[in-house]
Amino acid sequence: MALIVQKYGGTSVGSIDRIRNVANRIKTEREKGNQVIAVISAMGGVTDKLIGMAQELSETPPERELDVLLSSGEQQSIALLAIALNDLEIDAVSVTGRQAGILTSGSHTRGRIEEINPDMINDYLKKDQTVIVAGFQGMTENGLIHTLGRGGSDLSAIAVASAVNADICQILTDVDGVYTADPRVVSKARKLPEISYDELLELASVGTKVMQSRSVEFAKKFGVKFEVRSSLNHNPGTIVTEEHEAMESVVIRGVSIERSQARVTITEIPDTPGMSGKILGALAEAEINIDMIVSNIANDGNARHSFTMHTSDLGRAQAALKPVLAELSPHANIETEAGIAKLSCVGIGMRSHSGVAAKMFESLGKAGINIGMISTSEIKISVTVEENIADEAARIVHTAFGLDQE
Amino acid sequence: MALIVQKYGGTSVGSIDRIRNVANRIKTEREKGNQVIAVISAMGGVTDKLIGMAQELSETPPERELDVLLSSGEQQSIALLAIALNDLEIDAVSVTGRQAGILTSGSHTRGRIEEINPDMINDYLKKDQTVIVAGFQGMTENGLIHTLGRGGSDLSAIAVASAVNADICQILTDVDGVYTADPRVVSKARKLPEISYDELLELASVGTKVMQSRSVEFAKKFGVKFEVRSSLNHNPGTIVTEEHEAMESVVIRGVSIERSQARVTITEIPDTPGMSGKILGALAEAEINIDMIVSNIANDGNARHSFTMHTSDLGRAQAALKPVLAELSPHANIETEAGIAKLSCVGIGMRSHSGVAAKMFESLGKAGINIGMISTSEIKISVTVEENIADEAARIVHTAFGLDQE
Repeated sequence: MALIVQKYGGTSVGSIDRIRNVANRIKTEREKGNQVIAVISAMGGVTDKLIGMAQELSETPPERELDVLLSSGEQQSIALLAIALNDLEIDAVSVTGRQAGILTSGSHTRGRIEEINPDMINDYLKKDQTVIVAGFQGMTENGLIHTLGRGGSDLSAIAVASAVNADICQILTDVDGVYTADPRVVSKARKLPEISYDELLELASVGTKVMQSRSVEFAKKFGVKFEVRSSLNHNPGTIVTEEHEAMESVVIRGVSIERSQARVTITEIPDTPGMSGKILGALAEAEINIDMIVSNIANDGNARHSFTMHTSDLGRAQAALKPVLAELSPHANIETEAGIAKLSCVGIGMRSHSGVAAKMFESLGKAGINIGMISTSEIKISVTVEENIADEAARIVHTAFGLDQE
Repeated sequence: MALIVQKYGGTSVGSIDRIRNVANRIKTEREKGNQVIAVISAMGGVTDKLIGMAQELSETPPERELDVLLSSGEQQSIALLAIALNDLEIDAVSVTGRQAGILTSGSHTRGRIEEINPDMINDYLKKDQTVIVAGFQGMTENGLIHTLGRGGSDLSAIAVASAVNADICQILTDVDGVYTADPRVVSKARKLPEISYDELLELASVGTKVMQSRSVEFAKKFGVKFEVRSSLNHNPGTIVTEEHEAMESVVIRGVSIERSQARVTITEIPDTPGMSGKILGALAEAEINIDMIVSNIANDGNARHSFTMHTSDLGRAQAALKPVLAELSPHANIETEAGIAKLSCVGIGMRSHSGVAAKMFESLGKAGINIGMISTSEIKISVTVEENIADEAARIVHTAFGLDQE
C-alpha cells in the first residue's frame, strides 16, 4: 500500500463530467489498495471569471480581497470532487488550505509556503479516508487567506507530499511527461523515464514549461520525488528526482528552444569599472529581463557588450539605454538583431563528460548553421541561432547526442 | 458615532451593480460618522447554482461537503463588496465566518451558533475599517465549516451585533418593515415604528415571513435591538425590541392570515385516556405538522377532535389516521374541510386588556362572517374562516382594532 498525492489542474476538473472522471481515476487508485490525497485547482475558467468580476468593480482591487475571492474557487472544486467520490462509494473529505495546515508568509496573491501542519489530513488518513485538498491557497499565522500565485497548486501538492511523507507525488497534467525535446518540433523526441530536479529546472527556464521553477525548487529542497504524467491516460510519466549515479551516463537529457529572442550589442564604449552595472541597471529599472550576457574587449581597447532579451522588450530597451550610453561616450554605438532563438542542451552528465560543447558546435557547423552568442552553466550549454533555422538546429543536436527514438 | 451592523440578503448583492449600490449605502453611513459591519449573503442565485452542481454529481451529496461548497458563495460576495468599497475609497476588509469567530455546533447544513469571538472584527474596527462578514456560515471547534440553514445570514448579523455590542442591527430586505397587516390585502395597513420580539414571533408563525423565528428568538435571548428596513430606499423601518410599558397601550399590533389550511374532525370515538395521544402520534409519525387543536365531548359522551393543517397534507393525514381510528372504534368518523384560512390578531396589549376576543368575534359576526375553530395564546387570538372571505375578515378586524391608516 502506497500513499500517493495526486495533483489535478483546473482543466482536469473543468466540468461536472471531468470531475466525475477524476473521481473515477482516484477510485481506481483506491482499488489498488493505495491511499490518495488529491490536491486540486479551481475549475477551469472560474478564476478568470472571478477576476473579471473584481475588475468590473475596481481597476485596482486590493490583493487581500482578491485572495479571499479567488480561494473560493478551490473551495468549490474540492467539495464537488468529494461529492463525486462519495457517490462512487469512496469515503472522501475535502480540506481547504487552512484545514490542510498550509501556513504561508509573504504578500497577498503570491504567498510563500512556510510550513505544513498535516494533523487534520493525517487524522483522515488514519480513518482510511481519501482527502481532497484545495491547492493554490494557504493561511497566514494571523488567519488571513493567501493564494500562492501562478502554479500554486503544484506547489501545494509537493508541499503536502513532503509533509505527509508520501511515497510519490503525481502531477497530472495535459502533457504525458517530460520529453527530450518538444515532440512538435523534434518528431524523434522520447519521453524521459526520469530526470533530475536540476535538469528540469534548466529545461523549464528555457521554454519547456512543464512546471513553475519554484515548485521544482521546493521539491528539490525537501527531496520530494514527483511524477509528471497525463490526466487523460494511464501511461507512466516522467519521474523527477534527486540525481543518482546512473543518470550521469547520459550526457544530454534534453534539448530546448526559446524563440522570439533579440540581441542587443553595445560597442565603442570605454572599458571602465562600473560601466556594465550602469547599462544593466538601466535595463533592470525599465523591468526588462535580460538573459545571455557576453562581454569582451575589442582590439581598440573599447568594451563590447551583448545580451539577449525577448523581442517584445527591444523597443523599451533601446529607449532605456539611450540616455545612459550618451553619458558614457559620445561614440557609443548600439546594434540590435531580432529574429533569433536560443538553443540549449541540458544534462548533469556534462559535469563528468568533456567535449560536450565541442560536439554541439561541430554538429551545427557541419550542417552549416551559424552560432551567435554562447553561454554555459554547469549542466547547460546555450547558443543563439537564427530563429528560422532553430527547429532544424534542435533536430541536429538531438540526433548528435543520441537522443532520437530508435 | 454609532456602531451599526447591516445585513444584506442575496438579492441585495445579486449583481455587480447591486453590490456597488450596497457599497454606496455603506459609504453614506460612514460619511455620517458611523462605523459599519455588513453581514451579507451569497449573491442571489449562486447558492442554487452550487446545489444544482452537487445534485448533478450525487443524489445524496454529503452534508459536510455541501457546507464547504455553499460557504464559498459568501466568501465571494464579501470579497466583491470589500473591493467595491475600497474603490469608493472606504477602507474595508472582508472576514469569513471563521475569521469572524462564529463558533458553531450541531449538524452540517444547519449549524447552531454557540458563541462569537469577535477579536478580529474588533481589531479592524479599532483601525476604523469597515468590516464585511460572511453570513450563513461558521466553524466548529474542530475547524470544520458549518452553514446555518435557511435565514442563517439574519442569525449571523444578530449574533455579530450582540458580540460587538452594536448600537443597532439593521436587517435590510425587500420589505419596508413590519406592517399591521399584509398591505397587499389590507390597503390601510400601516408600517409599525416598533414591535416586540414576541409579537414578531407570533406574527411570523402565522405567515408574515419577515424573518425566521430562530433569529428573532436569538435577538430576544441576547437583547439585540434590530430594525427591519428596505435595502431599496432610506425610509426608517420597524424597530424590533424588548417590550416596554408604552407598547401595552396598543391592544393589537397586527393582523395576519395563513391560507390553504384544512380542518380534520374526528367524531364518534370514546373519550378514553391516551386517545388524543394515539391520534396525534400517528400524524407526527407521518411528519404532518398540525396547528390549531380543539377537543371537546359531545352530548352522547363521545369525544370530538378537530385540528388544522396545511391542505397539501390532507391526503397523507387521512391515510395515517385510518388504521388508528379503526382500532379505536368501529363507529369512528372522520370529516375533512379544505379551503379554510387562519386569521390571527397579535399584541402584547392583550395581556392587560380584556374583551379583545369578544371584540374580534363581534366585528366578524356583524359582517356575517362565520367563525370555525378558535384558539388563543397569551398574546394571540386565532380563528378559522372560509378562505375566500379571509381577506375581507382581515380588513374588518384591522378596522375594528383601530389599526387603519388615518
